[in-house]
Amino acid sequence: MIRVGIVGGAGYIGGELLRLLSGHTEVEIAAVTSSRLAGRRVDGGHPNLRGRTGLAYVSPEDLPECDVLFFTGSTVADREGRAALTARGKIVYDLSPDLRLADPAVYRRHYGEHPAPDLLGTAVVGLPELYRTRLRTADLVSVPGCMATASILALRPLSEAGLLEPAVTVDGRVGSSGSGASAGEMNLHAERSGVLRVFAPLNHRHQAEIAQATGLDVMMTATGVDAVRGVQVLCHATLSEDVTEQDLRRLYRAAYQAEPHVRVIAQKRGNYRLPEPKILLGSNYCDVGFAIDPGSRRVLLCGALDNLVKGGAGNAVQCLNIRMGLDESLGLDFPGLHPI
Amino acid sequence: MIRVGIVGGAGYIGGELLRLLSGHTEVEIAAVTSSRLAGRRVDGGHPNLRGRTGLAYVSPEDLPECDVLFFTGSTVADREGRAALTARGKIVYDLSPDLRLADPAVYRRHYGEHPAPDLLGTAVVGLPELYRTRLRTADLVSVPGCMATASILALRPLSEAGLLEPAVTVDGRVGSSGSGASAGEMNLHAERSGVLRVFAPLNHRHQAEIAQATGLDVMMTATGVDAVRGVQVLCHATLSEDVTEQDLRRLYRAAYQAEPHVRVIAQKRGNYRLPEPKILLGSNYCDVGFAIDPGSRRVLLCGALDNLVKGGAGNAVQCLNIRMGLDESLGLDFPGLHPI
Amino acid sequence: MIRVGIVGGAGYIGGELLRLLSGHTEVEIAAVTSSRLAGRRVDGGHPNLRGRTGLAYVSPEDLPECDVLFFTGSTVADREGRAALTARGKIVYDLSPDLRLADPAVYRRHYGEHPAPDLLGTAVVGLPELYRTRLRTADLVSVPGCMATASILALRPLSEAGLLEPAVTVDGRVGSSGSGASAGEMNLHAERSGVLRVFAPLNHRHQAEIAQATGLDVMMTATGVDAVRGVQVLCHATLSEDVTEQDLRRLYRAAYQAEPHVRVIAQKRGNYRLPEPKILLGSNYCDVGFAIDPGSRRVLLCGALDNLVKGGAGNAVQCLNIRMGLDESLGLDFPGLHPI
Amino acid sequence: MIRVGIVGGAGYIGGELLRLLSGHTEVEIAAVTSSRLAGRRVDGGHPNLRGRTGLAYVSPEDLPECDVLFFTGSTVADREGRAALTARGKIVYDLSPDLRLADPAVYRRHYGEHPAPDLLGTAVVGLPELYRTRLRTADLVSVPGCMATASILALRPLSEAGLLEPAVTVDGRVGSSGSGASAGEMNLHAERSGVLRVFAPLNHRHQAEIAQATGLDVMMTATGVDAVRGVQVLCHATLSEDVTEQDLRRLYRAAYQAEPHVRVIAQKRGNYRLPEPKILLGSNYCDVGFAIDPGSRRVLLCGALDNLVKGGAGNAVQCLNIRMGLDESLGLDFPGLHPI
Repeated sequence: MIRVGIVGGAGYIGGELLRLLSGHTEVEIAAVTSSRLAGRRVDGGHPNLRGRTGLAYVSPEDLPECDVLFFTGSTVADREGRAALTARGKIVYDLSPDLRLADPAVYRRHYGEHPAPDLLGTAVVGLPELYRTRLRTADLVSVPGCMATASILALRPLSEAGLLEPAVTVDGRVGSSGSGASAGEMNLHAERSGVLRVFAPLNHRHQAEIAQATGLDVMMTATGVDAVRGVQVLCHATLSEDVTEQDLRRLYRAAYQAEPHVRVIAQKRGNYRLPEPKILLGSNYCDVGFAIDPGSRRVLLCGALDNLVKGGAGNAVQCLNIRMGLDESLGLDFPGLHPI
Repeated sequence: MIRVGIVGGAGYIGGELLRLLSGHTEVEIAAVTSSRLAGRRVDGGHPNLRGRTGLAYVSPEDLPECDVLFFTGSTVADREGRAALTARGKIVYDLSPDLRLADPAVYRRHYGEHPAPDLLGTAVVGLPELYRTRLRTADLVSVPGCMATASILALRPLSEAGLLEPAVTVDGRVGSSGSGASAGEMNLHAERSGVLRVFAPLNHRHQAEIAQATGLDVMMTATGVDAVRGVQVLCHATLSEDVTEQDLRRLYRAAYQAEPHVRVIAQKRGNYRLPEPKILLGSNYCDVGFAIDPGSRRVLLCGALDNLVKGGAGNAVQCLNIRMGLDESLGLDFPGLHPI
Repeated sequence: MIRVGIVGGAGYIGGELLRLLSGHTEVEIAAVTSSRLAGRRVDGGHPNLRGRTGLAYVSPEDLPECDVLFFTGSTVADREGRAALTARGKIVYDLSPDLRLADPAVYRRHYGEHPAPDLLGTAVVGLPELYRTRLRTADLVSVPGCMATASILALRPLSEAGLLEPAVTVDGRVGSSGSGASAGEMNLHAERSGVLRVFAPLNHRHQAEIAQATGLDVMMTATGVDAVRGVQVLCHATLSEDVTEQDLRRLYRAAYQAEPHVRVIAQKRGNYRLPEPKILLGSNYCDVGFAIDPGSRRVLLCGALDNLVKGGAGNAVQCLNIRMGLDESLGLDFPGLHPI
Repeated sequence: MIRVGIVGGAGYIGGELLRLLSGHTEVEIAAVTSSRLAGRRVDGGHPNLRGRTGLAYVSPEDLPECDVLFFTGSTVADREGRAALTARGKIVYDLSPDLRLADPAVYRRHYGEHPAPDLLGTAVVGLPELYRTRLRTADLVSVPGCMATASILALRPLSEAGLLEPAVTVDGRVGSSGSGASAGEMNLHAERSGVLRVFAPLNHRHQAEIAQATGLDVMMTATGVDAVRGVQVLCHATLSEDVTEQDLRRLYRAAYQAEPHVRVIAQKRGNYRLPEPKILLGSNYCDVGFAIDPGSRRVLLCGALDNLVKGGAGNAVQCLNIRMGLDESLGLDFPGLHPI
């Protein structure tokens, strides 16, 4: 059994790691940390796990030796603390934004000065569909942002083929769980219910990750919608040459036919013609799709996922499976619900 | 013009008072207080009022002389503070629970020791349908709780006629705005969305008000539902003698036909056969209805309203209109929306 | 492998059977029928199953020989048709209301005349917690209604112990998936969103099933709420003798400690103190809880489940596992999500 | 009193016209037509109007002589029928898409062949902010589409000033009431709840209206969101020269400071910094706002409104007020609710 430690288990990403890893046949959860809740049962704040786990939180300083660690929050501000943690586990999956960007200048523009810039560029990006080979041996993996993952997977078949004009507009929509379990007053139900809140009209942070992975010139807008889970991104782009819808379909099929966690959804009929998160809640799929304007070179590329699963915890577990030589989908087989 | 002061204007009831009173042709809002936000514009936290008011909050100590005051929060703990406030306005509409119960023992059971028990019983209950005559001259009015108002209006025609067995079960459902603008973590959108949260399995506080107004022996349960506004109450009761559905209809019609803000809804067809808050948002109606089991004496009595309007601010304005000899519905004519 | 046939696979219960059975390691889905959609892929209307199944619907007359059949809709009106179906599978799990009631008079009161009254009483009720022994050998099983299951499991520890006064009021709340995939105009999103729709003010059909299983005199109200999945029932009851909260806790624990799909939830703190469906979507749990009024003998008993899983398809699969001598939870291990 | 007739009153736009006009002090509703519901009370399908109107539907052929007619649905396919209607009222406000486009070729591309192309270009566009002078005398007015109105008002200050590059991407989001009261299966609550449904990935019809009013080259995407009412549009555009945020603010203020039903919302703090429909439900405001990327010429222009009010019925009533020389906001003073 692989001994894993979850560093920061009280939040929503921590809860999903607990759900996925406690149902994973090759993993044993050695410890879950929380400074604030040490000694309390983990199913207190994660009530869906009642009857599934008897675990209680431990203090970060009591983290035992593990094979693998998952970091759900930022660790770079406290160098000694981070060293003490990484001493307890050789392989680290970092789900925070700490290591997502390689270029300090780009990081600075979106997050401010990085406390440990030497760490930038040291992690492999935790996107199996792009970096599977490197993930087989990587000991430090940075799991990308939820909207970044959806956008990269939606754009990549075309950007890789050199078929896109560089300027791309990404319109991201995200549920309230993206703001975390200790979000502020603006996330009160009465204020957050029914919203279409453009919280990042331009230059949302995830655009830097998308640009880094695709080489495109991305401008990203983000809107909070009335959902708890789920991300959808619409990428408005222009083809650099004439391409038919059939070409597009062929390109996307070729890119993803062997991928266990990406589905191509671009249908002519039915209620669910393009990707949407409604049917993906709890699943580790990223659905991607496209539409093309026959009269011009305008295309719409679309991606959807559950921000806490394929956009976070599930993606990290998929990386772990790859690293350990396991079936890549182990513990990640929940298909999502319909209707919901 | 009637000069009114709103003491505590930053919350949701304060916002509704502002909306209703700023559209009221006979009222001038002299001041709105907030200790925390003094100096800030009121449309900051009440964004629906942008372009409707240029008012800014003042400190409670800067409250000017008014004709009428509305208290949205508790004032009884600080006797001097309360006296300083009441010195600025002869007529007071108190929307807090401070003065809703007349009996100190009953108050204690639900809220703990009252800091100023001599005040209990000094206010007229702000329910026009029951106490209109007294409200014409009352200088201290206590506006009842939202679920209490709906329940009292649903039960009253039968309790008044002596047709109910005393034991009644009230099942209240309420949206998240009832928890206020500074509610805690359990009111985060991610936690509060999609809930059926039985926050008061038994003995909800409003049962004391219902018992006080109807003489019944009430046991009340309350559930938070996934809505921002709105209250619905289902009262499970037993008739004390044989009564037909036609009798019931006659009784309810007689009780409320002259009431401008109560509608009897008990229909045989259509989608909206019994009262529900969906179509009442923003309106000052309380809809009441009933159903009867032909095979027994079981009845279901139902009430619905917008907790911030007929369950709070609108009810207070209706009382004000009565007190001032105005058209009782002045400023309260919004019918609600459909669909919504 | 157990060969199963799903008779009527296009609806929501059909979709859940497909989801659960296509992930079940001991089952092979031999066929799924739909008169209307024969020849069409099943993932058209069940988009969560894309990439999980290549199945297409067949006509009911093309149903092959199976070990086990699941009926999702009524079959009793057409005797020959039913005989033709049952000739293809020895073991039948019937999820329709056809066989839920044993007494023709009770059936008539709620559904009208039964077309084949000789069938009433011939099926074992598909509730493992009550009838596990009989389910080990039963070839005809009638899966109970969703609100009935939640109510029976909430009431049973007390009714079984003879601790309840007979008169019980059940207040059921249910999401829109309960109305099915071909529901009418009143289920349009614009009409159904935000509702608290008392569609059965008294005498909801499921009360007959609850009475049958508990011996109580049940009056049941049902309200449609703004959710797609999920059932919650509140049972307002009176104890027939003095019982403490500790006694209650002991009783419920004893009743359900060995049950893999019932959890007792009655907590003193946290956001999720009593059962609610929000955290049960997709799971096969029924959560039950209780609250007691120390000053009287009034109790509130509460149950929650996913109407399509423990309230339908999941319960049927649990019965199948029991019948086949498998691990009772096989294919039913999804814990539910939080937050959602 | 102005005698108005509503032709097609059973739908959602018809309901809003009824709500607004029955509260309008200078208007008398002479008749409301419905072929299907002739003889039935209008408050059956518009339950918010109970107690507000005793009107019943009449057949279209029984439409009496009126001063003004409102057409909520298409009339152009039946020339004689249309002539019979227009004979009953000199002034017509047409809320259907029939007359929104002036160019038959553009109409054809989005809607197919127009049955009466000679009518195209004969109506004044019902947008007071652009065409107020012409609306003072217009006898045939075509009220624009809901997302078109929001987009045109958001874009116009910049397009009018010649400050935009022609290529603009409009991302529209709309609630389910936009699909009407007789929408199909894909609008069932269970299917429509929680969606982010890209029903028009490219070339949404309203783009033609936006292009017509602004001269821009518009590509429009539209997504159905989990709301009943409300429209939000995000217009991704590029400035044609360097412009500061202050310049933008000045431009928008200048364009709309005298407009009673447009507010400029582009704030640096608070929860509601850019326009969103949540606080506009029931109101006749269109809120518009903007954000600018200091490092490039990219701008985001944003508009929001209630699709049934400023996006339909309210806009029509505003046009009527202008035509009749009344206060432009008469009957349109509801500010919207917060929270909701």
